[in-house]
Amino acid sequence: MPRWEHGSEERLKQAAMELFAEQGFEATSAVQIAERARVTTRTFFRYFADKEEVFFADADALNEALVRELHESADVAEPLLAVAGTLAGFDWEKLGSREAQRRRNALIAANSELLERELSKHQRMAAGFSDTLRERGVDAAGAELAAAVGIQVFRTAYRQWLEGSDDTDLATRTATVMSLLATIVPAAARLR
Amino acid sequence: MPRWEHGSEERLKQAAMELFAEQGFEATSAVQIAERARVTTRTFFRYFADKEEVFFADADALNEALVRELHESADVAEPLLAVAGTLAGFDWEKLGSREAQRRRNALIAANSELLERELSKHQRMAAGFSDTLRERGVDAAGAELAAAVGIQVFRTAYRQWLEGSDDTDLATRTATVMSLLATIVPAAARLR
Repeated sequence: MPRWEHGSEERLKQAAMELFAEQGFEATSAVQIAERARVTTRTFFRYFADKEEVFFADADALNEALVRELHESADVAEPLLAVAGTLAGFDWEKLGSREAQRRRNALIAANSELLERELSKHQRMAAGFSDTLRERGVDAAGAELAAAVGIQVFRTAYRQWLEGSDDTDLATRTATVMSLLATIVPAAARLR
Repeated sequence: MPRWEHGSEERLKQAAMELFAEQGFEATSAVQIAERARVTTRTFFRYFADKEEVFFADADALNEALVRELHESADVAEPLLAVAGTLAGFDWEKLGSREAQRRRNALIAANSELLERELSKHQRMAAGFSDTLRERGVDAAGAELAAAVGIQVFRTAYRQWLEGSDDTDLATRTATVMSLLATIVPAAARLR
């Protein structure tokens, strides 16, 4: 891809986030985003199917990278740790500063359509992790549970990281949430 | 609500599920559903905002009932068990036969828009459970984790119940999945 095109994509993302913050997501159009980024509307639609996709343009590539990471991880004998460790070990700051990610998440949480898309990306990630664990010999129920619960442990840690004012890193927070999980799962599980 | 109106709603749901099964969800229109149920299209829209809502018409009432159940449950000292126990204790067959629920779930899984709505209902349920646990004294991170993980444990059991050919009930299956979770959460949690 020529360099100037790559520049357009970054400028479009930047412009979109600025406009969403200034005037809200609903009030912002693809035309406005293109104008702010100094490209044509047609260029906008070359990169994004709609303004929602500005949030999720990298999500599929991210999902694939994380699933590949889990696939190549040394050990899945403890599948829950493998999933949470894969997520905690990723360099999330590559996706933008903590402040930028905080703004992104606040926008998603405030819009039900964006939230639904975000949840379906998590679901797809869980399916990818679960398939990978099964390919590596984990039984079906254990794989499904480890994938979904591992993602949830990480999401709790990630939310704390976004909201936190101190510099505790994501790996440390994820380990803490995993310990918390260990305290709420009864050793001899039973239902009321 | 007059009796004949209640009858219309049930007939509309029945007609919708028949048509979705016969010709697929995408190919079915509100007009066709109303015709099959022998009511006017206007009556259809009195009950459902769109054909998607046929799947989710009872979801909000169900969410509220479950959250109320958790709120009134005797003991939340073990919040994960309280959440899973609330879900496992509900009489799911009230929502229709296992075969009907299996068909409903297959239709949802096959359509990304329906799946997104379903996931957002789960998310709302998790938020309701988490708020209730916090009101009852559970700390924020423990409440979030217990709500989300408890729902996941139940979802795994529910999927097994839908797919299973034997008569093991949901409460037993949920207890089994909870035991499985206990085996994959390391007592002394650590990350790779």
